[in-house]
Amino acid sequence: MEKKGFCVWFTGLSGSGKTTISNLLVEEIKKRRGNVEVLDGDVVRTNLSKGLGFSKEDRDINIRRIGFVAHLLVRNGVPVICAAISPYKAIRNEIRELIKDFVEVYVNASVDECARRDVKGLYARAFSGEIKEFTGVSDPYEPPDNPEVVCNTEEETVEESTAKIVARLEEMGYL
Amino acid sequence: MEKKGFCVWFTGLSGSGKTTISNLLVEEIKKRRGNVEVLDGDVVRTNLSKGLGFSKEDRDINIRRIGFVAHLLVRNGVPVICAAISPYKAIRNEIRELIKDFVEVYVNASVDECARRDVKGLYARAFSGEIKEFTGVSDPYEPPDNPEVVCNTEEETVEESTAKIVARLEEMGYL
Repeated sequence: MEKKGFCVWFTGLSGSGKTTISNLLVEEIKKRRGNVEVLDGDVVRTNLSKGLGFSKEDRDINIRRIGFVAHLLVRNGVPVICAAISPYKAIRNEIRELIKDFVEVYVNASVDECARRDVKGLYARAFSGEIKEFTGVSDPYEPPDNPEVVCNTEEETVEESTAKIVARLEEMGYL
Repeated sequence: MEKKGFCVWFTGLSGSGKTTISNLLVEEIKKRRGNVEVLDGDVVRTNLSKGLGFSKEDRDINIRRIGFVAHLLVRNGVPVICAAISPYKAIRNEIRELIKDFVEVYVNASVDECARRDVKGLYARAFSGEIKEFTGVSDPYEPPDNPEVVCNTEEETVEESTAKIVARLEEMGYL
């Protein structure tokens, strides 16, 4: 089998479970393909986008940079996982057009549930107004219309969500 | 033979011949390895570093971003060519430490000769003071101490320079 690159693109609110699922998915892909790269929102903001803020314009630039790097990797046969909130539909579709081998995973959990988990303590600061332009609170989140996979993390375990993605990747011929 | 990634890192003044040599080198690497990516100064400034200027700080950030992306590709077995002026020694050495499989190519031509060629018309604008912080005119260029290859483009043809790099890559086991 020829090794084809592909990009698993997570999208979802802060605290919805993107990083948790991607940590498990990395192991599954490594087992089957040997290598995989993760471009996580925080890593990218440190290495490629320091100085950018959270306005729509800056978020779009950040996502375009992730897309540019993912594209370079994918076209050289590398499996890539991108895990950034990526709240805007138009820019996600732009990246889909660019990369082609694009598997969008909508990590779905309500704002209430994400705020209850509040893993990084950010929702409390968003509700108090200390953080402006916080996705789901003071900034919009646009769910995808036709994602390749939907993970409902209020109902599924991390293992179940990961298994759904792996199954879809197998179906699409990437694993 | 296992396919090992590597990074050919060009450094030299604007107009010294980095892009011209890298265009020929790309073909040679493609023939032998099938794939190769070029991270050229202009491409990167468009896709990863829009908004950055030419102060030492901004140049260093730009080079670090190129290094970050090159590293991701190299560790996945991809041959990469980086062709940016990269005038500062310390940051080039930082990238060398990061990537390890790093082949520094010093493209050497005097400021006078580069200004005579003035491919992009930039030297005229630098001498007139219209462009500030122009490497070799109003901003320093620090040549490498121990580059893997030196191309003296005032004396060699593009073919000769390229052949030197290919020979060194074969010697080092990358081709």
